[in-house]
Amino acid sequence: MRKFVFLLCFIFAQYVMFHTAIAQKRIPRNFPEYGFFLNKQQLYLQELLEFLRFPSISASSEHLKDVQGAAEWLRNRMLGAGISNVQIFQVGKYPLVYASIPAAVPQAPTVLIYGHFDVQPASVEDGWNITKPFKPRVIQDKIYARGASDDKGSLLSVVHAVEAILAVSQGRSPVNIKLLFEGQEEIGSPDLPSWLLKNRKLIQSDLLISADGSMHSENIGSIVWGLRGAGAIQVNVTGPSHDLHSGGFGGVVQNPIHCLVKLLESMRHENKSIAVEGFYEGTRPITQKEKDFARQSIDFEQELSRLAGVSQLAGGESELFDTVERLWFRPTLDVVGIWGGYMDQGIKTVLPANAYAKLSFRLVQEQVPEKVVEKMIQHVSQHCPAGCSCKAFDLGFHALPFESDPDMLSNQVLRETLLDIYQGEEPKYVRSGASIPIVGFIQKEFQIPAIFLAFGLPDENIHGPNEFYRIGSMDKARKAYVSFLYQLGERYHLEHSSKKPIESHVVTTSPMENVEMDHSEL
Amino acid sequence: MRKFVFLLCFIFAQYVMFHTAIAQKRIPRNFPEYGFFLNKQQLYLQELLEFLRFPSISASSEHLKDVQGAAEWLRNRMLGAGISNVQIFQVGKYPLVYASIPAAVPQAPTVLIYGHFDVQPASVEDGWNITKPFKPRVIQDKIYARGASDDKGSLLSVVHAVEAILAVSQGRSPVNIKLLFEGQEEIGSPDLPSWLLKNRKLIQSDLLISADGSMHSENIGSIVWGLRGAGAIQVNVTGPSHDLHSGGFGGVVQNPIHCLVKLLESMRHENKSIAVEGFYEGTRPITQKEKDFARQSIDFEQELSRLAGVSQLAGGESELFDTVERLWFRPTLDVVGIWGGYMDQGIKTVLPANAYAKLSFRLVQEQVPEKVVEKMIQHVSQHCPAGCSCKAFDLGFHALPFESDPDMLSNQVLRETLLDIYQGEEPKYVRSGASIPIVGFIQKEFQIPAIFLAFGLPDENIHGPNEFYRIGSMDKARKAYVSFLYQLGERYHLEHSSKKPIESHVVTTSPMENVEMDHSEL
Repeated sequence: MRKFVFLLCFIFAQYVMFHTAIAQKRIPRNFPEYGFFLNKQQLYLQELLEFLRFPSISASSEHLKDVQGAAEWLRNRMLGAGISNVQIFQVGKYPLVYASIPAAVPQAPTVLIYGHFDVQPASVEDGWNITKPFKPRVIQDKIYARGASDDKGSLLSVVHAVEAILAVSQGRSPVNIKLLFEGQEEIGSPDLPSWLLKNRKLIQSDLLISADGSMHSENIGSIVWGLRGAGAIQVNVTGPSHDLHSGGFGGVVQNPIHCLVKLLESMRHENKSIAVEGFYEGTRPITQKEKDFARQSIDFEQELSRLAGVSQLAGGESELFDTVERLWFRPTLDVVGIWGGYMDQGIKTVLPANAYAKLSFRLVQEQVPEKVVEKMIQHVSQHCPAGCSCKAFDLGFHALPFESDPDMLSNQVLRETLLDIYQGEEPKYVRSGASIPIVGFIQKEFQIPAIFLAFGLPDENIHGPNEFYRIGSMDKARKAYVSFLYQLGERYHLEHSSKKPIESHVVTTSPMENVEMDHSEL
Repeated sequence: MRKFVFLLCFIFAQYVMFHTAIAQKRIPRNFPEYGFFLNKQQLYLQELLEFLRFPSISASSEHLKDVQGAAEWLRNRMLGAGISNVQIFQVGKYPLVYASIPAAVPQAPTVLIYGHFDVQPASVEDGWNITKPFKPRVIQDKIYARGASDDKGSLLSVVHAVEAILAVSQGRSPVNIKLLFEGQEEIGSPDLPSWLLKNRKLIQSDLLISADGSMHSENIGSIVWGLRGAGAIQVNVTGPSHDLHSGGFGGVVQNPIHCLVKLLESMRHENKSIAVEGFYEGTRPITQKEKDFARQSIDFEQELSRLAGVSQLAGGESELFDTVERLWFRPTLDVVGIWGGYMDQGIKTVLPANAYAKLSFRLVQEQVPEKVVEKMIQHVSQHCPAGCSCKAFDLGFHALPFESDPDMLSNQVLRETLLDIYQGEEPKYVRSGASIPIVGFIQKEFQIPAIFLAFGLPDENIHGPNEFYRIGSMDKARKAYVSFLYQLGERYHLEHSSKKPIESHVVTTSPMENVEMDHSEL
């Protein structure tokens, strides 16, 4: 039955260009697992709230125990889901939860589903006024808590989906499933790459599915075909050997805050492009096809202005590139933190001994985080103003840029799934300015294509105060995973008599050069 | 006897140019009050430690009660010193301790002695590693605590000196003494000026003596003939309506830290002079006489580098003026605090909603703090980078610049006193880059000349961590006050048959135009 429905839809899909926005009448597929989900909404919600109560902040050493706590909670929940072989690996200082579930058919493809249970730092002072970051609060359809949208919500739905598949099919999974849930994503997964390289067998698969990411909106899904890479450094500027009186020394001893300001300003040209030598190495001009394809998808100006609460999108290279180009195809350099001197009430006339800044950058195309970090450190040492000493160091947050072919087979299956989940609404083909460090790495090192199946939404304040997730997204997510895994298995079975990789090409450069619909794989 | 000794020295002094550095053999004057001090060192020290335990931080509203506590402790100590009429006035939110002691002779001059018992903010995190800021600790000759040097140490010695005079002379003070000890100096005495204007009778006097200030070194006194004025603003920069993800929005939404950096950098020309329009209004070229006189006094380069712990004095307008010019005769603009975004361990990829800075400036000559504040606020609103909004506001810290004639009569008496206290070592004639807000104000509004008699030393880390004061300075200070007040009374009696102001001229501009020794007053 399942195969029959699939075939119908498959034939139908031949006539629909993936980027047309015309909503088609379709018969949404149904899976017996959806019945398994019925009446479990309240239970699933309570589980998520429990999961969210761990302040699993990977950036803070004092919260390491909570990252560990979240990992153990997750392992127990996975065991409860009928996944028999769940392991916690110690990766650097951080736990990683891993499991593998064999398919019923020996020739079935293997998918590696990725998510993370660590979260960004959060404190009430940042502006959390609906609830405390780790006291989840439900208001109507929204669950407020740090990590709700990024990434505990989507991650937990993967477990719910796998549980349903195992329960309904009596353990007969349609594909080989590997689950890789990590606890250091928010600090750039510093220890994970070397662990992955040492554990190739555990990782090797035909497709990487990231449960970290987001959809376009409540009623429209998205297919992500690009992410920016990332890196980060800290800059420490030192002036006098101790804090001085700004009257007794102001004007004769160099103020490290002045040095820092001058140094940071030296990193940008007047037209706001980055002045750090070598920063742009590995970038290339944006192709006309990329531009055209990008512009079809979203009204960036309105959408982003509204989400950010600004009247004008003026950041980055705004004099050189338009909004979508800047967000998807251009690197950026952001000062994400700055501090020095007196930051309390009133005034203290101090000439401080030190000033600090944290900088993060987003990378595209062939830029390599380690190289950019090096160039940045070089710039800092070469542009330190007289009278100060300046030091920069790598904060260990590295992410390779990610690009894929929007039309590869797994994205076609993804489109089918999203059409069903979103009642026939065509998904948007999008990129994101954000980074998921490990996705670019796995794609490059293991030559595995990657897709994104995660249900956070852009207005959910991830990394900011009052982060939230929608209860409705939980249902979409678990159904989508069931649907995608079954369809993938069927599609694979349909197309391949003997086992071979699902995709024959992993795009790492100029994906738009062959973005034309290519049905040769179908 | 006292008069006889004084006369001898007076005749002797006629032959000594005040700025010669030749140490002369002299017979130091002695006063019976010095005997009163004997065996009280330990008691005085314990009192100071008690006084220092009040965290009387005027900048912090939560410490208002401690400012009040320090005021009450001081009043009680003054009452204990035999000063019968001690009052605490409420000046804005801050206490002010006031007393007046009539002279034995009706025609005696009136001196107004000024000090402050509030202190700069301090916390262990600033680098206090010898003791906590408000747990005073004595190591050998040094008393470590916030406020030890600035200004509780010198202030308390005034009380000890007056106590001794009253005790020894059985209440017959050689001059009329008014004591004005305030609790808001470290925030720029915002409420004091209007109070002073409403209480003219309490203030009116012939000479203002500031017990806030410092000496040149342990073995050399100083005569201060100039202070810089001051003002301060805070700058608040706003970008998006809430913290954003630096990946999802970096490069398209303007980062308020970038705006702040650009704004701060716009305040300085390439040659480091201040680019804020109108900032220099009221300044004039430094005269050759000022330069010459200044250069005689101290080896600035070595001394300041050592104190600041830097190898190079590169601050302020270093390309345009030499060190002493910059510190004594030129205004400055210092960022005394900056903050925004993520300031904790590791990295948080946030594009923050806000960024902040506190700026203080030092003023000279005819610059007026209120006007400079206005120009600064104007600059901030006119130079706010696109995509941000910038607001600046006055932090209420205003100090007029102060200048006096180094050779006026009271400075001559001061020189005699310092020669005695420092075993015949000629005092240095110095200015300071710092500000004592109320001194410039009283001088200007009440046309009262001012001198400085305070025993802090430049290496005592005032406003910084591990502030300390020397026990030996306490003895010098109380003796110096006894000596100065007696000599002033005698000198006055000698020169004036009827009461008239001690000084006929209060210098507010170009003091060095008539810096030549003028003995016409003697």
